[in-house]
Amino acid sequence: MRTVEEHRAAVLERITGLPALDVPLLDSLGLRLAEPVTAAWPLPPFDSAAIVGYAVRAHDCFAAQRDRPVHLDVVDDVPAGYRASVPVAPGTAIRIGAGAPLPEGADAIVGVDGTDDGRAQVGILGPVARGSAIRRAGSEVAGGAVVLEPGVVVGPREVALLAATGLSRVPVRPRPRVVVISTGTELVEPGAALTPGLIADASGYMLTAAATEAGAIAFRAGPVTDEPKALLETLNDQLVRADLVVTTGGVAADTYDTVRSVLARLGSVRFTRVAVSPGSAQGHGHLGADQVPIFTLPGSPLSAFVAFELFVRPVIRCMLGHEPGDPGVRSATLDSPIEGHPTLRRYVPARAMARGDDLHVAEVTAPGLLGLGSTDVLIVVPAGTERIHTGATVQVLMPGTP
Amino acid sequence: MRTVEEHRAAVLERITGLPALDVPLLDSLGLRLAEPVTAAWPLPPFDSAAIVGYAVRAHDCFAAQRDRPVHLDVVDDVPAGYRASVPVAPGTAIRIGAGAPLPEGADAIVGVDGTDDGRAQVGILGPVARGSAIRRAGSEVAGGAVVLEPGVVVGPREVALLAATGLSRVPVRPRPRVVVISTGTELVEPGAALTPGLIADASGYMLTAAATEAGAIAFRAGPVTDEPKALLETLNDQLVRADLVVTTGGVAADTYDTVRSVLARLGSVRFTRVAVSPGSAQGHGHLGADQVPIFTLPGSPLSAFVAFELFVRPVIRCMLGHEPGDPGVRSATLDSPIEGHPTLRRYVPARAMARGDDLHVAEVTAPGLLGLGSTDVLIVVPAGTERIHTGATVQVLMPGTP
Repeated sequence: MRTVEEHRAAVLERITGLPALDVPLLDSLGLRLAEPVTAAWPLPPFDSAAIVGYAVRAHDCFAAQRDRPVHLDVVDDVPAGYRASVPVAPGTAIRIGAGAPLPEGADAIVGVDGTDDGRAQVGILGPVARGSAIRRAGSEVAGGAVVLEPGVVVGPREVALLAATGLSRVPVRPRPRVVVISTGTELVEPGAALTPGLIADASGYMLTAAATEAGAIAFRAGPVTDEPKALLETLNDQLVRADLVVTTGGVAADTYDTVRSVLARLGSVRFTRVAVSPGSAQGHGHLGADQVPIFTLPGSPLSAFVAFELFVRPVIRCMLGHEPGDPGVRSATLDSPIEGHPTLRRYVPARAMARGDDLHVAEVTAPGLLGLGSTDVLIVVPAGTERIHTGATVQVLMPGTP
Repeated sequence: MRTVEEHRAAVLERITGLPALDVPLLDSLGLRLAEPVTAAWPLPPFDSAAIVGYAVRAHDCFAAQRDRPVHLDVVDDVPAGYRASVPVAPGTAIRIGAGAPLPEGADAIVGVDGTDDGRAQVGILGPVARGSAIRRAGSEVAGGAVVLEPGVVVGPREVALLAATGLSRVPVRPRPRVVVISTGTELVEPGAALTPGLIADASGYMLTAAATEAGAIAFRAGPVTDEPKALLETLNDQLVRADLVVTTGGVAADTYDTVRSVLARLGSVRFTRVAVSPGSAQGHGHLGADQVPIFTLPGSPLSAFVAFELFVRPVIRCMLGHEPGDPGVRSATLDSPIEGHPTLRRYVPARAMARGDDLHVAEVTAPGLLGLGSTDVLIVVPAGTERIHTGATVQVLMPGTP
């Protein structure tokens, strides 16, 4: 029997970030850059007016004074997005919008406030330094310069910078494609007519949602029946699009269970007992030519949930290029006594309530799925603990973290 | 001129959660329930075996002892997902899998350990109480009972509960559809050939990413040119699919700007100066028969970013059925001096670094978009502040929160 930590280390052993993929800019949101990103364009991409005003030759304006303006002929009017049709020759000026490209011949911009805002002719009210109010091409970012380093997680502000430097596609660690396969002849779709003997595929839906929440692209396949052929066919169909396969159900060591018996024959899937309750019977291995990792989780939603948080979530994180991170654990005060297990580490569904800075937790009393639906955290009860009393400080695992 | 708080209150005034929409179960992930959800099926949906064993009549087993077993004829073998073909008559038993429906006539399950595990005949090794190891239909949730209250945010565990109680569609506050329209004749798609005078639509991409991150379904329309007709046509096309419209650009009070002049004529859009720097020139109003709210944000990415965090994000949150929440502000220690503004509240892009429990912040030194790309937080500098010195405690706004 493996400890939780041993099993965690084993499932993470061969996992790395997925190979870099160039994705459209907006699809990179929330993902990590896989490579340094270099500017396709300099920033700003061309010399431009920083303010609304008049593009001039500074030399023409040396003698300008408020009470003795220099008058220049206005030969064009260029808003942002347009280019001047003529250069700024000596004695002339071009009216210009903020962001419009610097006309040929001009070497300074005089803001509207420094002029009489004339249209055919403009009076310049003072001298202007060469280069004034010009944003130079490449002054923020040179073309080809690295703008973002690998490992950066792309957020809205990074999207702005990437767009501005001309990048429409970005190399990221893509979202892993996780295929969730529920097994069990008794499973049907929720919404079907209620038939004695058949139940809804709660674990398949839950694991698909959990994988999505963890950053994966999750596909729900099945449910498949307990016929070995059905499972093998589904695995064959799904492997081509999977970076990770998660099955649920069929792993208990009783006569009716299929996943265990089918996969045990395929070679590299090991069914190991993990010292965890609920859900000690589970398996892990690799399938097919691409050696796609597979988790075979228990069928009970609570067991599958605990196994997802402890083992599947860190694998998805690693594939996304993050450190797996330790499960998010914090201290809390126990509000109800709780029993331990002699050899298994228990993860007990609990409600949590903040009181000031302190977190108080109490075991969920509602049974089964109703209890799971009202679970905030899992209280960690070390193996060999007999009982933890009310008021004790306990460790709790916060689902969904890190 | 409005304060930030006045403008915030004004833009939120008419915003409520979007009308409830029934969405497929997995699409409800992360959304708030709009109505109480009642179980379509009881849970468990039928009487079933809690463990692997034999379905028996308890009366038949009263005299059973380990050394004097009671022998029963095994008349069927029923895994989960199947139903018994015959009832359990006196003197008979049916082998049964965990989760399989209780056969007619049986009133208890004896676990395998309490038997000799026989196939044609089974020896029962002790008496069993009526009802033993039977999960009764509806014992967790009665059909029609409320399983989740309105306001609950659907996570993986709620998905499991909803699926188990037979629900394939769930009434939620749907994701608002946010249409982002960039305006500016100078705007092109990143990835295009670099042309003097033209720049990439950084703000449009950024706002689309920010709205997505905030929980909206964001569509990026445009960029549209500064021709009034282009903007009007795009607005007409997009309004039908928008719960919220966000434009960027064209709001400065200079001769070349269009959004301001087009929308000022459409009636309910007000261009108000907000006492915020950057980005004091912006507008807000309602458009069309459905009175779709519209924000007209500045074109500069930094100004648009600040306005999104202060005004657009809380509107999206409200539409999702949340309280708008105050912007996530916390204290930090200033590592570089910072200038204030006499009448505007400044939001200064800054890097943040945790030192123990303390957060240290320093103004971003990189210019423009490069600076925005390295911004962690915004330092809040109250209007009328002259200067804040190194070492002072400042308030910082954490983008993306609440």
